[in-house]
Amino acid sequence: MELPSADSPTGSSEPREHHTELRVRYAETDQMGIVYHANYLVWCEIGRVEWLRSRGISYADLERSGVGLAVVEANLRFRAPARYDDRIRVATRLAEVRSRSLLFLYRVDRLGGEAETPLVDASTALMAVTPEGRRRSVPADLLAAFRADVAQP
Amino acid sequence: MELPSADSPTGSSEPREHHTELRVRYAETDQMGIVYHANYLVWCEIGRVEWLRSRGISYADLERSGVGLAVVEANLRFRAPARYDDRIRVATRLAEVRSRSLLFLYRVDRLGGEAETPLVDASTALMAVTPEGRRRSVPADLLAAFRADVAQP
Amino acid sequence: MELPSADSPTGSSEPREHHTELRVRYAETDQMGIVYHANYLVWCEIGRVEWLRSRGISYADLERSGVGLAVVEANLRFRAPARYDDRIRVATRLAEVRSRSLLFLYRVDRLGGEAETPLVDASTALMAVTPEGRRRSVPADLLAAFRADVAQP
Amino acid sequence: MELPSADSPTGSSEPREHHTELRVRYAETDQMGIVYHANYLVWCEIGRVEWLRSRGISYADLERSGVGLAVVEANLRFRAPARYDDRIRVATRLAEVRSRSLLFLYRVDRLGGEAETPLVDASTALMAVTPEGRRRSVPADLLAAFRADVAQP
Repeated sequence: MELPSADSPTGSSEPREHHTELRVRYAETDQMGIVYHANYLVWCEIGRVEWLRSRGISYADLERSGVGLAVVEANLRFRAPARYDDRIRVATRLAEVRSRSLLFLYRVDRLGGEAETPLVDASTALMAVTPEGRRRSVPADLLAAFRADVAQP
Repeated sequence: MELPSADSPTGSSEPREHHTELRVRYAETDQMGIVYHANYLVWCEIGRVEWLRSRGISYADLERSGVGLAVVEANLRFRAPARYDDRIRVATRLAEVRSRSLLFLYRVDRLGGEAETPLVDASTALMAVTPEGRRRSVPADLLAAFRADVAQP
Repeated sequence: MELPSADSPTGSSEPREHHTELRVRYAETDQMGIVYHANYLVWCEIGRVEWLRSRGISYADLERSGVGLAVVEANLRFRAPARYDDRIRVATRLAEVRSRSLLFLYRVDRLGGEAETPLVDASTALMAVTPEGRRRSVPADLLAAFRADVAQP
Repeated sequence: MELPSADSPTGSSEPREHHTELRVRYAETDQMGIVYHANYLVWCEIGRVEWLRSRGISYADLERSGVGLAVVEANLRFRAPARYDDRIRVATRLAEVRSRSLLFLYRVDRLGGEAETPLVDASTALMAVTPEGRRRSVPADLLAAFRADVAQP
């Protein structure tokens, strides 16, 4: 994994909240005509991975280097449903950093039309794990970068 | 929808916690070699539907009669991972009943081997909705049955 | 549904093959460390929907107007696996048009690195259906647009 | 992996076609009100794994022993849709055995009501692979058991 250098996107000019857009897939709908609720966890994961990428961190590389991030807690509030073909924005930010765990917050909105519609608020706590699934520390340089991010005003 | 009669499984002899078993599908694993976390919400739904069935209520019929139950909140604590082909038990119980919403609690365990292993604790809040997705009341007879269930010692 | 007009993207200048890109989600992997095979059907659907959109047709609108396209046959050849975070391109083209059915062909490639890697070849036959799932004809104007597309050299 | 012994279910008295039942999950439906088509590949996988188990072979153990079975081809004909909560039967049989590949056939039916309804016919070709995904031979004892199965009248 290549860590962000001083002039990388992790610098203080990077907004704390990262935005990713996606479009609702037909496979994600259910017979209520709305997105099946479990899919929002998949979207949060996409938001989290793109948040990492925006800081110069590839989660794929991170995992190859022996550091996985396993979801240990997830909380979701569903405010309004997403529908097929909707354009969706996942806003992700890192809210807490500990030596072995991270807390990410997500806000999922529907785009388009005259205004954005808030759909889901969510949080996930992640624990650093070895490839065998045992707890481990987040590498020090990564931890420092994460802490700098959280400390931003 | 046929509602439970006095001598139905909804009677006081029905244990409040309903158990459903399933086996982990290959499609539910991810490259960490464990079950992808979003699938536990699918399993909770199965637990909830089978809980309803054990009370004589078919969720499919309920929805056809114009009463959907939409998930408005979900909380999950992941304690240990499930793996491919594991035998899983979802224990479901109804914890709270309001005129428009229900709170279900779930405990997901791995079976087999010398002992059960607790995997996930979860809760979901559900809101009664019309086929168009608008809030509505839970029908009175259903509400009474649910309340009787929660009131059990 | 708005149908393409003479100067729309359906015109002869539109290449017959439409390309859509996506990135492999963690949820799409399995414990073999590769994309679970059923997901390629989801990607083909995305390719097909974007093919339609490139011709000025929104599948969401089409369905709202009473014309669904149900998959009645699917054939897939898996040549090489996609992996987590891979950049994927789905190339889609319409190969046959009948009054009630369409045949789409797909080629899924991995992008990046020095060269593209062909992953999957697939085809799906689709049948026009009413919202109740009964066979119906493809609307005449749509049929004409589709036929013009297939007739392109 | 424990291979079937002479008096195991692999003996000639085992019917060639293995039946597995499942119930349609809400998560498997889409906004057409039917099962999303990609899920039938998941059900075929369940049928195949249970076919193996009925012969005394655990696919989980097989994979742990270094022999994976990767899907290299899949063909599906969709005749009628499955719906939420339907009881489904997957009938699986092994149709061809080669030193490095297997061909399985599937018939998916809806149960219940006055009669069974045929939903989907499918086939998948599988190739034996190492944990790294390279082609390898099916172990000789397994191959012999498979060939005996196919040779049954």
